Amino acid sequence: MRYLPGQPHQLPGNRQQLSDYQAQHFCLEVAAGVATVTLNRPERKNPLTFDSYAELRDLFRAMAYADDIKAVVVTGAGDNFCSGGDVHDIIGPLTKLDMPGLLAFTRMTGDLVKAMRACPQPIVAAIDGICAGAGALLALASDLRYGTARSKTAFLFTRVGLAGCDMGACALLPRVIGQGRAAELLYSGRALGGEEAERWGFLNRLCAPETLQADAQGFALELAQGPNFAHGVTKKMLQQEWNMGVDEAIEAEAQAQAQAICMATNDFHRAYHAFVAKQKPVFEGD
Amino acid sequence: MRYLPGQPHQLPGNRQQLSDYQAQHFCLEVAAGVATVTLNRPERKNPLTFDSYAELRDLFRAMAYADDIKAVVVTGAGDNFCSGGDVHDIIGPLTKLDMPGLLAFTRMTGDLVKAMRACPQPIVAAIDGICAGAGALLALASDLRYGTARSKTAFLFTRVGLAGCDMGACALLPRVIGQGRAAELLYSGRALGGEEAERWGFLNRLCAPETLQADAQGFALELAQGPNFAHGVTKKMLQQEWNMGVDEAIEAEAQAQAQAICMATNDFHRAYHAFVAKQKPVFEGD
Amino acid sequence: MRYLPGQPHQLPGNRQQLSDYQAQHFCLEVAAGVATVTLNRPERKNPLTFDSYAELRDLFRAMAYADDIKAVVVTGAGDNFCSGGDVHDIIGPLTKLDMPGLLAFTRMTGDLVKAMRACPQPIVAAIDGICAGAGALLALASDLRYGTARSKTAFLFTRVGLAGCDMGACALLPRVIGQGRAAELLYSGRALGGEEAERWGFLNRLCAPETLQADAQGFALELAQGPNFAHGVTKKMLQQEWNMGVDEAIEAEAQAQAQAICMATNDFHRAYHAFVAKQKPVFEGD
Repeated sequence: MRYLPGQPHQLPGNRQQLSDYQAQHFCLEVAAGVATVTLNRPERKNPLTFDSYAELRDLFRAMAYADDIKAVVVTGAGDNFCSGGDVHDIIGPLTKLDMPGLLAFTRMTGDLVKAMRACPQPIVAAIDGICAGAGALLALASDLRYGTARSKTAFLFTRVGLAGCDMGACALLPRVIGQGRAAELLYSGRALGGEEAERWGFLNRLCAPETLQADAQGFALELAQGPNFAHGVTKKMLQQEWNMGVDEAIEAEAQAQAQAICMATNDFHRAYHAFVAKQKPVFEGD
Repeated sequence: MRYLPGQPHQLPGNRQQLSDYQAQHFCLEVAAGVATVTLNRPERKNPLTFDSYAELRDLFRAMAYADDIKAVVVTGAGDNFCSGGDVHDIIGPLTKLDMPGLLAFTRMTGDLVKAMRACPQPIVAAIDGICAGAGALLALASDLRYGTARSKTAFLFTRVGLAGCDMGACALLPRVIGQGRAAELLYSGRALGGEEAERWGFLNRLCAPETLQADAQGFALELAQGPNFAHGVTKKMLQQEWNMGVDEAIEAEAQAQAQAICMATNDFHRAYHAFVAKQKPVFEGD
Repeated sequence: MRYLPGQPHQLPGNRQQLSDYQAQHFCLEVAAGVATVTLNRPERKNPLTFDSYAELRDLFRAMAYADDIKAVVVTGAGDNFCSGGDVHDIIGPLTKLDMPGLLAFTRMTGDLVKAMRACPQPIVAAIDGICAGAGALLALASDLRYGTARSKTAFLFTRVGLAGCDMGACALLPRVIGQGRAAELLYSGRALGGEEAERWGFLNRLCAPETLQADAQGFALELAQGPNFAHGVTKKMLQQEWNMGVDEAIEAEAQAQAQAICMATNDFHRAYHAFVAKQKPVFEGD
């Protein structure tokens, strides 16, 4: 048996609008430049399915060309973030796949992470309750994470007999929380509570459950107000310099910043003139 | 004068048993899949010698083929972990070596770290008291570290006139505790206390002195219960992805996880069936 | 309009003395092997100008050949570290530069960071008050950072419409404080207070404002007392191993340490003989 990826979703091409895209396997709302992706099967703690994986991958790929999205929030409905790959809809079928089918699946899940890292919009994860398996990777693949003290993040692949190297975890997690702490979480599969997660730098901010969504939206809105071109360059360079030497990274930044200054010249000029006039700059993204 | 490495130790080859190996320069005990390596010269705080270096290197190299070892604990006898290279047995002779002899020595000590990183078993260091010089590197080369508040970890190479770049310290330490904190420890050679070490992520857990060994054994036993094939893949991928770009790491994980799913198929199936039956899975390593 | 770099400064060549160099655009004092660089326009919170950038670059490049400098302290006059590129003297002119001129500027600022990372002396930043923009990069490019609770470090490039990738920030900052926290600071441009900075590993030590300078000088003096050749090798290897694989890094250290043992043989012998005699070694740098 082979894994058959879902049909390509009809998503916008170059410099189009995502605001009116009707997502099939999750909720998508767009307001004031902030796209909010809500995994929405709260009765099952928002598990991922073959279909939602594929549509998320296609959505984040389309983000690169979406003029109307400036920042993204990823969250879950109810009081949970995401329980990971659905035991019945994914784990069961995987036990029946042949090797090419398994590789097609692990590549598709990895492609979702690649698309999240490649889109120019900063992504803020808002995490309450369970954040497990592939759900923990959705959080990790985001740029920033807001969460609650009662959130439980578990890289629990080992609990289903798998290795911790799933969707980039062995590359991403050590850079966020350090190599020793990452090893412990990946070998044990244990749940990381919210306070410890903030202490380790996995969570950027601890929020009360009742303000989590507003806090994450507030920060995303701040990011959406720009400078957007510059934010996209920042995100790209964090990715590009991941495994460069220090001197090569500095040269790459010299080029990128010079390009950014030049190409984003209007926002930079707006900031300069606002400073001189002792005003707060209003960025327009050009 | 040249450094002459010790005779190769008679250690098992492919898929053999290490349980009945009689170590000459430290204690080795094997129980329930957990190998415990105890440096055992407590009256000198367990220093390393040319001979114990070489035998440790050979032991960890043999681990790759040892069917009966699933996890490792490294610790010291008495109330100390390891005082590093013996001043009389190592530092003195080193001052008399020529350049090829010095390089043979630094390569042998580095080979011990390489062997610890290359063996598939997770290694838990249990650290009380002094953990200094090459001893600090044994701790750092482990996957995880449990320690006491009174433990003192010192990368003290600078105190004997040497550079901090010994046995991989300049590569490993910054990834565990961050570049700035690593620089301070390597330049100053100062001792890091246990509470600070936990706060920085060097120690994964602070234990009471009287429970340290039991805590470390307990975690190693949990790891030894599997899934062992998957743990070995996790360890290998943490190493492989060390200096890959993000996208290349994600592809490497797609392949490794697909392979792991396929090759460890029985443990994965056991986990799936246990979940469906709402039972705790029992892994068997195949 | 093109950016014209300042005239090359008359700085010492191979193995000369920097003690009597008269800096034009900042203060330079040398005492007991410690060079103290003080940005000195306190009424403007010590901003950088085209001229001070260029002279700092030339000074740190000359450090590699300066026999009389063993450690460096970088700090600011008054109660602030550095406010970054001067709004009137730098930001304004930049808005008028063409692309080659912009690239010449971003390369010059990057060259300052490269020179700080390349000189063999450990650099300690002493940070009080404002530490912003390029000032935050001066701190980040140092090996170690001492600071006060009231210090405010802001990678505020985004506030002037620019990307966070400036002078190596996207490479250096994630390795010091972790990828998630670095992303938050670079996207938001917000000020990081001293206590949080110490908790995250950006600051190595929190000092009272009235003892900051003495504390930083004290640590620099300790480093200046050696072993200096070994400290230079430690710094070089932290740089060299930045993006090596683990095994390659271990081999590089085997070579570097063997070389260091050999070439710095006198300090190593002094340490050995002092240990045997139960004395504190006095290093002489050879």
